[in-house]
Amino acid sequence: MSEISLLSEADCRACITLDTQSIKAVEQAFYLLATAKVAMPPILRLDVPEHNGEVDVKTAYLPGLEQFAIKVSPGFFDNPKLGLPSLNGLMLLLDSQTGLPVALLLDNGYLTAIRTAAAGAVAAKWLSRENATCAAVLGAGEQARLQLQALCLVRPIRQVRVWARDARQAQRYSREMSQIVKIKVTACQTIEAVLQNADIAITATPGTEPLIQAEHLHPGLHITAMGSDAPHKNEIAATALAKVDQYVADRLSQTRILGELHHAKGLLADENLAELGQIIAGQKIGRRSAKDITLCDLTGTGAQDTAIAALAWQRAKSRGKGLLFHN
Amino acid sequence: MSEISLLSEADCRACITLDTQSIKAVEQAFYLLATAKVAMPPILRLDVPEHNGEVDVKTAYLPGLEQFAIKVSPGFFDNPKLGLPSLNGLMLLLDSQTGLPVALLLDNGYLTAIRTAAAGAVAAKWLSRENATCAAVLGAGEQARLQLQALCLVRPIRQVRVWARDARQAQRYSREMSQIVKIKVTACQTIEAVLQNADIAITATPGTEPLIQAEHLHPGLHITAMGSDAPHKNEIAATALAKVDQYVADRLSQTRILGELHHAKGLLADENLAELGQIIAGQKIGRRSAKDITLCDLTGTGAQDTAIAALAWQRAKSRGKGLLFHN
Repeated sequence: MSEISLLSEADCRACITLDTQSIKAVEQAFYLLATAKVAMPPILRLDVPEHNGEVDVKTAYLPGLEQFAIKVSPGFFDNPKLGLPSLNGLMLLLDSQTGLPVALLLDNGYLTAIRTAAAGAVAAKWLSRENATCAAVLGAGEQARLQLQALCLVRPIRQVRVWARDARQAQRYSREMSQIVKIKVTACQTIEAVLQNADIAITATPGTEPLIQAEHLHPGLHITAMGSDAPHKNEIAATALAKVDQYVADRLSQTRILGELHHAKGLLADENLAELGQIIAGQKIGRRSAKDITLCDLTGTGAQDTAIAALAWQRAKSRGKGLLFHN
Repeated sequence: MSEISLLSEADCRACITLDTQSIKAVEQAFYLLATAKVAMPPILRLDVPEHNGEVDVKTAYLPGLEQFAIKVSPGFFDNPKLGLPSLNGLMLLLDSQTGLPVALLLDNGYLTAIRTAAAGAVAAKWLSRENATCAAVLGAGEQARLQLQALCLVRPIRQVRVWARDARQAQRYSREMSQIVKIKVTACQTIEAVLQNADIAITATPGTEPLIQAEHLHPGLHITAMGSDAPHKNEIAATALAKVDQYVADRLSQTRILGELHHAKGLLADENLAELGQIIAGQKIGRRSAKDITLCDLTGTGAQDTAIAALAWQRAKSRGKGLLFHN
């Protein structure tokens, strides 16, 4: 006899919001990556070219957490033709001590969106200037929205500019996000314009050609590049990457294959590479001065998934949410 | 809105038994591995040394099947101290066309046991002599039991001998299996004795030191080695492996890392290596004569998981089994 609890997307949304506690949980996951015996194997990826589909499976065991997650993220890009979303996803939570299934979080990708945005906030907190007020957002999708909301939780943002390949999307982002974050968000027509005087730039596009070039960089800028989570994706030119003072990965073993670093092979010396957890743990220095240019390359880690799923379950349990299935 | 069906272990047991149809489904999976655009990425493995635990995740997309499985197999070997089983496991079934979750099969490893035994039968069917009557079983655990039952479905077995490291286990196997397969099963005290005159030998132990040596082999023998599914496991001496006329893997990319082949690196020429699916598809020859010695090295594939899970779900659906969870 065993049992498993099922949480619906609504349950997950009720338990987890993009707030300082979610950010704290993700920050702790990065800290553990640098300081504890975390087990985080390479991402399992299944390609289904016949249906323009792919599935990523991520996992990580974090010492001290009562459960670990195995996350299944399918992306089937012909689904919109069938009236279905391209992306969905769920997380299976297993007991850290026994490996027994504890809960199935049918979040349809919601928790991934939150933990991804939270990682952006952690990156900005540890790498951008503390008095950063001006943010530039490249991209106008769901994650570009969440990234801005997360950033506003860790930096005193007063001015936001947005650029998107589709100018109407940028306009819409500007209208809608101005209301959500209560800050004026201005749509820009060029990458030069969006980046001008920005303290922090966030790239959150599905781009496969570099958007940010070396000449776009200016002293003091911090960039959070979170669009590249596959080998063919690319937002930052290799020459721009080579020009930053501190390059920080969520996980170097991943960014070397999937992230911006993948496109700049050999241009960055190993001693200049750091991981976000190493900065948080004080093992490496992130920003050395107000003039440094810093960049954080986020590909998404199983550690973040475990952190957010364990938090969601902890809250769900205490609130009596979920359907218990007896097996 | 989405939905997922939950099948209990009892549902899975009601839908799938070790019979000719299960064997057929697994045989078809191997056939597809050799002939179709199957996607089967390397196994994801998470190690949790802190709790003497490990998790394997296997998956495969098989063209033509309506779903594909992602199987999660935890093994936490301190569980018996807590009164819990070491092994459990479940399978998530996703729609092949859309990637949407279809069903969660909470089989606690039952379907894995069946598809593993079925693979043994497929190996014996394609590699052993058709008139094989005498079987030797090394090991006396659950899988050693299922392997014998599966073998009896494909070969006219009339005589069975069993050996196990623990002689009492061999005695118990002999008593119990004689009744189940209605054939006399004799417990042997040595590996020499169990293998004497055997037409087919099955190794199904957790052994890490070779049991079968080169001198144990005799003309006409077929061996199904299914105990090695991890780099440290080993049942067949490298010199014995080098002596067989045809070595056949379930998947060479796996047996090179996890199987018996892993321990015999460089001793077998590439042109002598085949996969079970290639034999079934007629692309390579298995047994050339009644005197050939053949060996099938089974590490367990995601393709088998997808085949058995899709069959289980097809039957569950037609019988109205499972709990539908609306999300």
